[in-house]
Amino acid sequence: MSQVNVGLCGLGTVGTGVVKLLTGHADEIKYKVGSEIQIKKILVNDLDKKRDVAINRDWLTTDPEELVSNPEIDVIIEVMGGIDDTNILLEKAIRNKKHVVTANKDLMAIHGPKLLKLAKDNKCDVFYDASVAGGIPIIRPLTEGLASDKIQKIMGIVNGTTNYILTKMSDEGLDFDTVLQEAQELGFAEADPTADVDGLDAARKMTLLANLAFKMEIDLDDVEVTGIRSITQEDIAFATSLGYTIKLIGNASIYDGKAEVTVEPTLLPKDHPLALVKNEFNAVYVYGKAVGETMFYGPGAGSLPTATAVVSDLMAVVKNIRLETTGTEYITPQYEKQLKQDDEKYMQYFIRMEVDDAAGTFQKITNVFTDENVSFQKILQLPSVKEKTAQIVMVTHKISKQQLVNSQENLKRLDVVNEIISCYRVDGEEQ
Amino acid sequence: MSQVNVGLCGLGTVGTGVVKLLTGHADEIKYKVGSEIQIKKILVNDLDKKRDVAINRDWLTTDPEELVSNPEIDVIIEVMGGIDDTNILLEKAIRNKKHVVTANKDLMAIHGPKLLKLAKDNKCDVFYDASVAGGIPIIRPLTEGLASDKIQKIMGIVNGTTNYILTKMSDEGLDFDTVLQEAQELGFAEADPTADVDGLDAARKMTLLANLAFKMEIDLDDVEVTGIRSITQEDIAFATSLGYTIKLIGNASIYDGKAEVTVEPTLLPKDHPLALVKNEFNAVYVYGKAVGETMFYGPGAGSLPTATAVVSDLMAVVKNIRLETTGTEYITPQYEKQLKQDDEKYMQYFIRMEVDDAAGTFQKITNVFTDENVSFQKILQLPSVKEKTAQIVMVTHKISKQQLVNSQENLKRLDVVNEIISCYRVDGEEQ
Repeated sequence: MSQVNVGLCGLGTVGTGVVKLLTGHADEIKYKVGSEIQIKKILVNDLDKKRDVAINRDWLTTDPEELVSNPEIDVIIEVMGGIDDTNILLEKAIRNKKHVVTANKDLMAIHGPKLLKLAKDNKCDVFYDASVAGGIPIIRPLTEGLASDKIQKIMGIVNGTTNYILTKMSDEGLDFDTVLQEAQELGFAEADPTADVDGLDAARKMTLLANLAFKMEIDLDDVEVTGIRSITQEDIAFATSLGYTIKLIGNASIYDGKAEVTVEPTLLPKDHPLALVKNEFNAVYVYGKAVGETMFYGPGAGSLPTATAVVSDLMAVVKNIRLETTGTEYITPQYEKQLKQDDEKYMQYFIRMEVDDAAGTFQKITNVFTDENVSFQKILQLPSVKEKTAQIVMVTHKISKQQLVNSQENLKRLDVVNEIISCYRVDGEEQ
Repeated sequence: MSQVNVGLCGLGTVGTGVVKLLTGHADEIKYKVGSEIQIKKILVNDLDKKRDVAINRDWLTTDPEELVSNPEIDVIIEVMGGIDDTNILLEKAIRNKKHVVTANKDLMAIHGPKLLKLAKDNKCDVFYDASVAGGIPIIRPLTEGLASDKIQKIMGIVNGTTNYILTKMSDEGLDFDTVLQEAQELGFAEADPTADVDGLDAARKMTLLANLAFKMEIDLDDVEVTGIRSITQEDIAFATSLGYTIKLIGNASIYDGKAEVTVEPTLLPKDHPLALVKNEFNAVYVYGKAVGETMFYGPGAGSLPTATAVVSDLMAVVKNIRLETTGTEYITPQYEKQLKQDDEKYMQYFIRMEVDDAAGTFQKITNVFTDENVSFQKILQLPSVKEKTAQIVMVTHKISKQQLVNSQENLKRLDVVNEIISCYRVDGEEQ
């Protein structure tokens, strides 16, 4: 096939980047895949909106049918967002034997498995490398470069907005609301930042990564999610004084065939490779049984970085079209889903509480932990600003989540404990 | 094809790892590629040597013909090293329609282009992802994940031995010889460390990366190489006090179609992603026009990490065999080789010299630089241990290599300059 025709759904930030790459790097792309790639149609909301990229006016349409049912179009690039309606469109496109490249993690986290199966049945490719970490090529390394290994753990900083906010909070001592506002003004955070700061965006990406790495169908609902709204400067100060950096970490691990996926604020030793990932950058840390630790670092979003991943996926589709091997890359999950229970989730924890500054307090607290067989790696006590109280921070050795929950309940019952102020996962330290 | 048969050349560190992975991860591998992978023959020097992996005695042979001319064998895995003799063997294997997976950067840096062409003519695959950075999947991300981008610069820490030595020198204040000996005792450095510490190993890897990234045939001889033998504690102390870390960096850059590849000790700002890569770890930092900065981090060597890359390549071959698409991944270089001349190589430099501690010295020195139109970002003068002398360190703004060479020659002619003690590239700071 000497020319491959593309229908582009969406002409926002990423869509504009895709057009720029397809025109600006046309020679290299053609040389590499052996076919010319031609944009046929672009689905937009507003035909007359000013665009900051040169567009052929004939390409634009507001009717999705002109793309998904257009016999001239070979590949649909979906960069318009949306979940259920978009899914219906893509299903139709696939039934019409069109290949799909999408950057839509929201859709893939929910409809991905069904869509991939439908594509296989129709001998179509569905590629979505741009959906996880923007410009970082992570899906192919996971599925191909590390194909021979058993992935045991993935830790990801997969949301640029929250990493930007936490970096500013740590480096400049600003509080969450101030930094969020600044991030919104700079365009690093949405007007409605909920999906980012509450961890949902990261959870969607971790679902996709966990499915690929562990070869089982983990649902978005299986992910335990905590965002970063409650992190305070005091948390950061205590973490720093104990040698940690706070990051919003997506964590996917598997042990004995049982998986756990979480997104939550996590303390990392300050020289951990992920602790050094700053501002809006993303990174995915992969621990493989054979390979040990590897990390992939880069921009997690942005017009051209994300477009790079989209167009690279498109080039892979075009190669498959030429080789007549489309629809061969999807593999049905190898394992039945099995999730860890709370008594199988082992982790270190950072627990900060306000207590009475009185004789016997510490003994009562340690009794609670001893009863649950919890021991400590670090303990720090400092006077509190409130009179006659103190703050205690304890970092446990690895304990089960069940042990943590039990300890917390028993601590709350103690009269000497005024408040458990915060409790975070600690990772990257004890094996 | 329900079974793919492998001939393994070499049963050393990596070969043993390959056998372990193929047996230990057999189920996952079969599930993923849809074929069983069977070892048929292993080429060894000594049939009776004790091995630390379970081997079928019938597999072993000392006769390469039993592999490269064996009609039962589909894929040759070459992990025995050697250059010219090994190349003859692999050429024969390819003429016999066998696919090749190799971890041999020495061979690929010299014979790679010819071997890849021969393979294409014979519809065979030659994959070599393990040759560059052990366990880090870097070749596929470069050729696929970032396929749509224009790679402008690659900086790599691609030699674990030298990175280990420089880390120890920096963190523990030990000198080169002491650390080298320690590294040899720990097995991080060879008995003959020349290829590592003099930069040749890194140069071979950078040749492979530059060819892929810039799509032109750059030869090993085109790489300017300086090793780490001459780096002293004093260099490190001055670099540290100016905010830098010294690393052995492979640098490949292209501007206006002209390439430059070097391997040399380089000063990086201490918070640069590559400055934070410690001990025997490797990392490859890629700057793409669209994607911006990405980095791939992981173990650069070791039995199982390297074997992971080898077996992942093998799985890619097996998939291609099943899809009947072998021999389609090699693309002839798109561009004629063009190299930057000295007046086109722009970089910052760190220059340290011992000078007379006398009135007028500084003026004479600055005159030399001013004549060459060289200006400075940082200057540091400290008293020297030698009486009546001082040490001056100057970090230039970006200048051409030609300007550097001219300035150095003129400095040497000054009576107030006793010695130019060291001169290193500075990177990662000014754009």
